[in-house]
Amino acid sequence: MTDYSSKLLEQAVNQLSTLPGIGRKTALRLCLHILRGENGDARQLGESIMRLREEVKYCIVCYNISDDDICRICANPRREAGLICVVEDVRDVMAIENTAQFKGRYHVLGGIISPIEGIGPSDLNISSLISRIETENIREVIMALPATIEGDTTNYYIYKKIKDFGVFVTTIARGVAIGDDLEFADEVTLGRSIINRVPFEGATERII
Amino acid sequence: MTDYSSKLLEQAVNQLSTLPGIGRKTALRLCLHILRGENGDARQLGESIMRLREEVKYCIVCYNISDDDICRICANPRREAGLICVVEDVRDVMAIENTAQFKGRYHVLGGIISPIEGIGPSDLNISSLISRIETENIREVIMALPATIEGDTTNYYIYKKIKDFGVFVTTIARGVAIGDDLEFADEVTLGRSIINRVPFEGATERII
Repeated sequence: MTDYSSKLLEQAVNQLSTLPGIGRKTALRLCLHILRGENGDARQLGESIMRLREEVKYCIVCYNISDDDICRICANPRREAGLICVVEDVRDVMAIENTAQFKGRYHVLGGIISPIEGIGPSDLNISSLISRIETENIREVIMALPATIEGDTTNYYIYKKIKDFGVFVTTIARGVAIGDDLEFADEVTLGRSIINRVPFEGATERII
Repeated sequence: MTDYSSKLLEQAVNQLSTLPGIGRKTALRLCLHILRGENGDARQLGESIMRLREEVKYCIVCYNISDDDICRICANPRREAGLICVVEDVRDVMAIENTAQFKGRYHVLGGIISPIEGIGPSDLNISSLISRIETENIREVIMALPATIEGDTTNYYIYKKIKDFGVFVTTIARGVAIGDDLEFADEVTLGRSIINRVPFEGATERII
C-alpha cells in the first residue's frame, strides 16, 4: 500500500481511480498535474464535474442529454417527424449526428438488455418509446444498437413490442466497413453483407 | 467538432481533457460514467480535486506533499538525521518509501534543470537544500534523480554547489535492472554497470 504522505492527496487519488480506465498510478499522475496547475484550474475542473452530475437534464421526449427540458434535436422543427432512431446511449447520438446523414429524431434507451449485468427491459426507456409510437404518428423506427448478442436481443424485444403498431422497423446496415479488405472481415459480417447486398447504383450514390 | 447537446457536458469534457493523457473521447466516456453514478459520487470527486489544490501543503523542510507544516517523514524522530535523498518530485518519495530501503529524509526539488522546458536552478528548491546542509549537520546527500541528461545536469549543478560543505555526495546505482537479460540492456547502462561493479558478497547480501 502506497503511503501518500497527505490525506488530501490520498482522497483525490482514491476518487479519481474510481473512474473507468484510471488506475492508482494514473490517478496520482493526474493529481500531481493538478497540483502543478493554477488554483482556478482545479476549481473549474471540480465544479464542472459536480455541475455536470447535478444540473444536467435528460430530454423528456428522447432522453438525450440536454440543458433544457426538451433537447435541441427534439425541439428542432426541421428534423423529420415520424422517424425515430433508437440508440443505446448519448454517445451514439453524437456519433450519428457527426455523420450528418440522419434527419429524424432519436430515442436513447439508456443501455441494452444484458442479463449478465442485470439490465432488464424495465431498466430501459422502452415504455416511453412505445408511447411515442402511439402518440407521435411514427412512420419508421431505425434500430441502431450494437451488433452484439445483447444488441440483437434488445432489437428483438423492442420489435416484438412495437410491430403491431403498424410502424416500419429497420436496423442499420451491418457489413464490411468502408476501407476494409474482405480478407480481414469476420465470416459472420461477410456472410451477412452478401445476404443483405444492395443494388450497385443506389449504394455507390450514397457513398459518393 | 462534436455537438455535445449540453453545455454542461461540453464544459466537463473540456475540463477533463486538459488533464495529461486524457483526450476528448476518454473525457466523454468519463463524463458518461459520472452521469450514470450517484450524485454524491460526483460531488466527492469534484470536491476532492478542489480541496487537493487549495488545501494541500508542502513540508517547509523538504517540500514533500503534507497535510501539516512539517511532513510525517521529517517529523519522524526515528528517521536517520544527517542523510538526505534528493529527488525530483513527490512520486519519487513514494517510490523510494515503497522499497523500505531508505531510512533518512528527503529533499524534493520540484523538478530538474531543463533548458528546453525553461526550468532553471532558481525554479527548484536548491537554495533550501544548501541551507539544510549548512544547518542540519548533514553527513551524506544521495542524488536520486532520473538517469537522463537533465538529471545528470542537475546532479552536477548541485554537486558543485554543495561539495565545499564537506558533505559526502552519492548517486543511486545505475545498472542492469534485476530480472533483465544483459542482451536487452542498452550499451551505456551495461558499460556503466561494469565500471561501477560492486564486490559480489555485499551485492548479493543486499538483494537477498
